[in-house]
Amino acid sequence: MKIALDAMSGDYAPHSTIEGAVLFTKEITETEIILVGKEEVIEEELKKYKYDRSRIQVYNAREVVEMTDHPIEAIKTKKDSSMNVALDLVKQGKASACVSSGNTGALLSASQLKLKRIKGVLRPAIASVFPSKHGQIVMLDLGATSDCKAEYLNQFSSLASKYAELLLGMERPRVGLLNIGEEVGKGNELTREAYTLLQQNQSIHFIGNIEATQMLEGGVDVVVTDGFTGNMVLKTAEGTAKLITSFLKEMIQESILSKIGALFLRKTFMHLKEKMDSSEYGGAIFLGLHNISIKAHGNSNANGIKNALKVADKFSKINLIEQLKKVIEEETN
Amino acid sequence: MKIALDAMSGDYAPHSTIEGAVLFTKEITETEIILVGKEEVIEEELKKYKYDRSRIQVYNAREVVEMTDHPIEAIKTKKDSSMNVALDLVKQGKASACVSSGNTGALLSASQLKLKRIKGVLRPAIASVFPSKHGQIVMLDLGATSDCKAEYLNQFSSLASKYAELLLGMERPRVGLLNIGEEVGKGNELTREAYTLLQQNQSIHFIGNIEATQMLEGGVDVVVTDGFTGNMVLKTAEGTAKLITSFLKEMIQESILSKIGALFLRKTFMHLKEKMDSSEYGGAIFLGLHNISIKAHGNSNANGIKNALKVADKFSKINLIEQLKKVIEEETN
Repeated sequence: MKIALDAMSGDYAPHSTIEGAVLFTKEITETEIILVGKEEVIEEELKKYKYDRSRIQVYNAREVVEMTDHPIEAIKTKKDSSMNVALDLVKQGKASACVSSGNTGALLSASQLKLKRIKGVLRPAIASVFPSKHGQIVMLDLGATSDCKAEYLNQFSSLASKYAELLLGMERPRVGLLNIGEEVGKGNELTREAYTLLQQNQSIHFIGNIEATQMLEGGVDVVVTDGFTGNMVLKTAEGTAKLITSFLKEMIQESILSKIGALFLRKTFMHLKEKMDSSEYGGAIFLGLHNISIKAHGNSNANGIKNALKVADKFSKINLIEQLKKVIEEETN
Repeated sequence: MKIALDAMSGDYAPHSTIEGAVLFTKEITETEIILVGKEEVIEEELKKYKYDRSRIQVYNAREVVEMTDHPIEAIKTKKDSSMNVALDLVKQGKASACVSSGNTGALLSASQLKLKRIKGVLRPAIASVFPSKHGQIVMLDLGATSDCKAEYLNQFSSLASKYAELLLGMERPRVGLLNIGEEVGKGNELTREAYTLLQQNQSIHFIGNIEATQMLEGGVDVVVTDGFTGNMVLKTAEGTAKLITSFLKEMIQESILSKIGALFLRKTFMHLKEKMDSSEYGGAIFLGLHNISIKAHGNSNANGIKNALKVADKFSKINLIEQLKKVIEEETN
């Protein structure tokens, strides 16, 4: 089994990606990593580590998709980009999964274009794991499909339910519909229509509407929403955490007492950062495609990359795609 | 000038509302407060304070709208509720504004029903002030109109622009359209259509799309979105702040060192809480109605109520409604 890693992507590449790959080979046996990107850069970086060379290959790709590139343009014009080539390896069956921490829009477009949708899938969705007060939550769509119909949300919920079952090892995960009120009839046209469909969906354990505040407290395993709202929630949560951190940092500087207090709390603050950090959960996955394509966070460190590779490995081994195909087949029958 | 205060609403009523009213009369001269609610409860609470009795009246209302009440039902069945009666006083011209920290849905429905929309207003919107890293932001709609058309967002932006000018004393406030990407063409159908209209809107200073992360960093004065998204962002921000606080509290208990650190940081944490606290900004306002109706946060303390009363007072004095009417007239001409 082989996983293609876009070695040039992310804020700390190629350091983060190469070290992440090396760490992966030390934790997981057998699976090989194909590092895709500028050969000489990767080889130079690899010299820093001791590792089993038979488990790490380098595959040359001369271009890099930048975070500032226009998604569609980048795919078309940079044919030899590490992202495009990594996905090509998956498409050609030379790798079972692709991991990249590059430009999300470009990765989504390229994944859709190259890996194609599973037959019967209405729209793809990005799913990821969110921290909550009481455990982890799988949330989707985080930005693949901005304009959704109720049927899409219904199908997302079936796919995500299976995904959560496999990722987090839970039976009959509780599915909530993200909404601005708990009661039936709350929300907008989309959520009201989706509510009815989710209620009738036999393949999921639907528990009703859930508000964002509730969601972050836990009590739900899968949260379904459209790509516009999901992306908004993701960015609002990130922005709020950043705002609190920046206010706190500023205020700590205001007195000697608070500076001392902050020193005592150094470990606690680091622990908090880890707990809020999404890279612990291995990144986001594009659900609905023919192969596994995983988006690690843009600011992933080596550990984040390793975790994303582990998720890719796990889903290759248990054949996630076949299991999702079954969900779609059952739904359409 | 008189302001009607729903004295029975909010988590800490009647203590918070009565003390808030008393504090108001000590800061602001002339304007009178009408405390609406159960007479005997209010009078009993008032005994605790020294204040100018000529500035505080009590108006009896026998019922209370609970947070758990169904909005429409509550307005219809509890005709003699403190919320309904406070709004009636405004409708009858006996008060120039209403302040309540009760059930948002009920207050919105009752305000719409009793105060009616300004002629030409397509839909009402809830506007409130958000903290950001660099100053305050007026955001709307926070939940009045869940299903929006591009025209509604365009009108919201004109109203909010005038509102921000008056509330925060800024000239030509920068207006951003809340979206999941900065570039033109990003987002869903609604934001793409709204973008075009906002660009053509002569009465605002439109600066383009703005993401939630950026918004919380500042660089924008007014942020426009539909009521579903706005409410979602509000609740996500609240939920994230709560989640961080609860993780932090838990972690602080883990060692003696961190407990000591937290003691040193006591003041800093309190200061942070204040800075994130929306009650500092006087609550939310229903824009587009014939009179001033202000929703203070459900968990407002006396200070939050006082601030909401001050906003109500300010807008009564400068005649906000007349200024908003002019905006609508200019738009429709």
